[in-house]
Amino acid sequence: MNPITYAQTHHDKFLEELKAFLRIPSVSTQPEHKADIERAATWLRDELLNVGFPKAEIMPTTGHPIVYAEWLAAGPDAPTVLVYGHYDVQPPDPLELWRTPPFEPTAVGDDLFARGASDDKGQVFIHLKAAEAFKATAGEPPVNVKCIFEGEEEIGSPSFNPFVFAHTELLAADVALISDTHILGMDTPTIVYALRGLAYLEVKVTGPDHDLHSGIYGGAVLNPINALCRMIARMQDADGRITIPGFYDNVRDLDPDERAELAKLPFDHATWLEEAGVKADWGEPGYTVVERASARPTLDVNGIWGGYIQPGAKTVLPSEAYAKISMRLVPDQNPKEIARLVADYLKQIAPPAVTVEVRDLHGGDGAIVRRDSPAMQAAFRAYAETFGVEPIFMREGGSIPVVATFQKALGIETILMGFGLPDDRLHSPNEKFHIPAFYKGIETVIRFLEGVRQTGV
Amino acid sequence: MNPITYAQTHHDKFLEELKAFLRIPSVSTQPEHKADIERAATWLRDELLNVGFPKAEIMPTTGHPIVYAEWLAAGPDAPTVLVYGHYDVQPPDPLELWRTPPFEPTAVGDDLFARGASDDKGQVFIHLKAAEAFKATAGEPPVNVKCIFEGEEEIGSPSFNPFVFAHTELLAADVALISDTHILGMDTPTIVYALRGLAYLEVKVTGPDHDLHSGIYGGAVLNPINALCRMIARMQDADGRITIPGFYDNVRDLDPDERAELAKLPFDHATWLEEAGVKADWGEPGYTVVERASARPTLDVNGIWGGYIQPGAKTVLPSEAYAKISMRLVPDQNPKEIARLVADYLKQIAPPAVTVEVRDLHGGDGAIVRRDSPAMQAAFRAYAETFGVEPIFMREGGSIPVVATFQKALGIETILMGFGLPDDRLHSPNEKFHIPAFYKGIETVIRFLEGVRQTGV
Repeated sequence: MNPITYAQTHHDKFLEELKAFLRIPSVSTQPEHKADIERAATWLRDELLNVGFPKAEIMPTTGHPIVYAEWLAAGPDAPTVLVYGHYDVQPPDPLELWRTPPFEPTAVGDDLFARGASDDKGQVFIHLKAAEAFKATAGEPPVNVKCIFEGEEEIGSPSFNPFVFAHTELLAADVALISDTHILGMDTPTIVYALRGLAYLEVKVTGPDHDLHSGIYGGAVLNPINALCRMIARMQDADGRITIPGFYDNVRDLDPDERAELAKLPFDHATWLEEAGVKADWGEPGYTVVERASARPTLDVNGIWGGYIQPGAKTVLPSEAYAKISMRLVPDQNPKEIARLVADYLKQIAPPAVTVEVRDLHGGDGAIVRRDSPAMQAAFRAYAETFGVEPIFMREGGSIPVVATFQKALGIETILMGFGLPDDRLHSPNEKFHIPAFYKGIETVIRFLEGVRQTGV
Repeated sequence: MNPITYAQTHHDKFLEELKAFLRIPSVSTQPEHKADIERAATWLRDELLNVGFPKAEIMPTTGHPIVYAEWLAAGPDAPTVLVYGHYDVQPPDPLELWRTPPFEPTAVGDDLFARGASDDKGQVFIHLKAAEAFKATAGEPPVNVKCIFEGEEEIGSPSFNPFVFAHTELLAADVALISDTHILGMDTPTIVYALRGLAYLEVKVTGPDHDLHSGIYGGAVLNPINALCRMIARMQDADGRITIPGFYDNVRDLDPDERAELAKLPFDHATWLEEAGVKADWGEPGYTVVERASARPTLDVNGIWGGYIQPGAKTVLPSEAYAKISMRLVPDQNPKEIARLVADYLKQIAPPAVTVEVRDLHGGDGAIVRRDSPAMQAAFRAYAETFGVEPIFMREGGSIPVVATFQKALGIETILMGFGLPDDRLHSPNEKFHIPAFYKGIETVIRFLEGVRQTGV
């Protein structure tokens, strides 16, 4: 029996096992679930040992533990693949909107409903079952496999980065493999090859040192809200092009090849408008909606506040105004450099009557993976064989900071081999994983590991 | 004995009586003080009768009662003066900051500390004591006097406007007299002759119909906060000149005479900066700070909110953004017309990808009183004789809506004859009334009423 046949003949077993994993309410953000987090880590470690990993252990961090496993039977000449995933989940709230209990996995038709089904327990479990298929047939995987599964992804991975940098030898590998993204459909497999980075700032504008009466001072004292709005308006033109000098200096332009590839993505404008809930799209002229939302940098005010924000009218000329402003970045923009550039610009354009403070809240590098590497080609063939249709390359507008971490700490690229679907309702009530995607995921991973064995990374 | 001598020889009596008035905690906004409001109205009615008014009564409204009194002994050929004031006070909070109990009036040196001392019980009481001085000497005031004292001024006077319009015959008079403003100093008596009006709008900008992930949609969906900031920035230039077409069409320009008069006001730039708590003044070029803050229209964002406003970073592309925007208006701008103009402009400049809704929250007419009327000249002479120095005419940046109400309902102008001082701490802890200002106020009112008898209004 080959591993694919093994996988195809053990569907029901795999599904029942996944349900056991999903029954553990490993909500990382809620202290009352700390014991469940430990339980999930232990369950995962035991299951790694069960499926054949000779070594699997729970490694403590200052937060929730990391589960590490390795199976290095392929030998030093074979490539090593580092699999990343997370065993923690989002809170299930609001509970009343769930049609089935979030921690009692329930199959309805072809979908398995549970918190964490798609994000990310179901996708983590794919890799365990691929390993099991190799164990049961070939005795071992065709390449060396290391696994690192964290329990803090849903709370911003505070321990993960330091852990990777502190364990670069342990984690040394030739390529990383992450299943935490989605394909566009069962008939439209897709491979994400680029992610945007992020620079996130909080801006505080102070005018008078106390709130003033707008009747007594209005007209002679600069209102910090008015000033902040004007400054925000000066960061971007009406079409969304960012007007901060130097902002685009390091932006890697889309080449014609890549634009042609992105143009292959199925995109229905009416459906997109409906999903976004907008009357019209918007953004930089000369780029398609897909390009604007994934391959171009942005500037969004994520929050703004100041003055009187209760019902009714109060004629205050406030002392302070605040905004949270974030920029999605593309290769090769550096988040720290961009944050400094923006802070400098805001201070430069601030009117002399106010004071501007800028805090750098958060940043993350974008990433772009070569589409012509042997590993990416192996992924391409694995999807094509499994789904019966060639996958399309796409860029993702959000960030997966771990990709940049692996790049920096381990010097390796990441293959994003996701099997979620766009309607999986991640982070929302009634999260689900499409059961055929789960099964096809296992086959795709089997074929990918076999492919990497043949061609290298 | 003449009335001035009577007033000068009864200082201690007047002060003790005022203290009794101030002991009643007539806080209009707090339901638990409803009985105190009734008590203050009764006390005031009784005191009006005591000082000689033949008729004084409590007139119910849907809210707190109005105290009305009249003394028409001067006969139909003499002018009638309508005195307005309010017997309600602001809450004393924060209590811990008071150095003396807010409702136990305490004289410290030349100041009487109590909530309501200056705003407005002390100034209301001036008119009662002026009447008493006439009663004790001439037997009756030289003109007909009507009094209307409300108990809802500190909560926006909801019952007052309807009351005045419903009682135009009862309240018919030749001129109104209000003591609820301040002079610049005991050596610098001032008469406020103009008030700014107000148009107050709430703007809602809706982008997507639900919050979106800024990674997935950012760059292709117009963010309503970004849009709102840009719209606000387009309402005004960097120097504060409002750029809404038509906004200045009806603005009555300052004539050279008036500018010369305003330039007489003592103004120390360093002191002003310190009081405002700002690094620099700001505003329309070509106008002084005094002119900008009192004689020119303004546009202030009084409040703004949208998106994520808690600590930390959330990458939301929000559905909605809000701003409260008010404009201080000058004669002859009409608040309703300005509100419509602004709403139309905002809708016109709104990008097609968002929806803009504008609510007209509140409006009030400005007012300007002729400086050359006989009544104003009588006020001028009364201040000059009492304080020993000619008063300066000044404009006030805020609004006193009752002035416009009297103009519209009764067709009369108002003389604002205030005796507060700039450091009276209205609405704040340790409110006080300067005792010499109280005594001089009584003399000024006596001289004013005598002056109006001689010259008419």
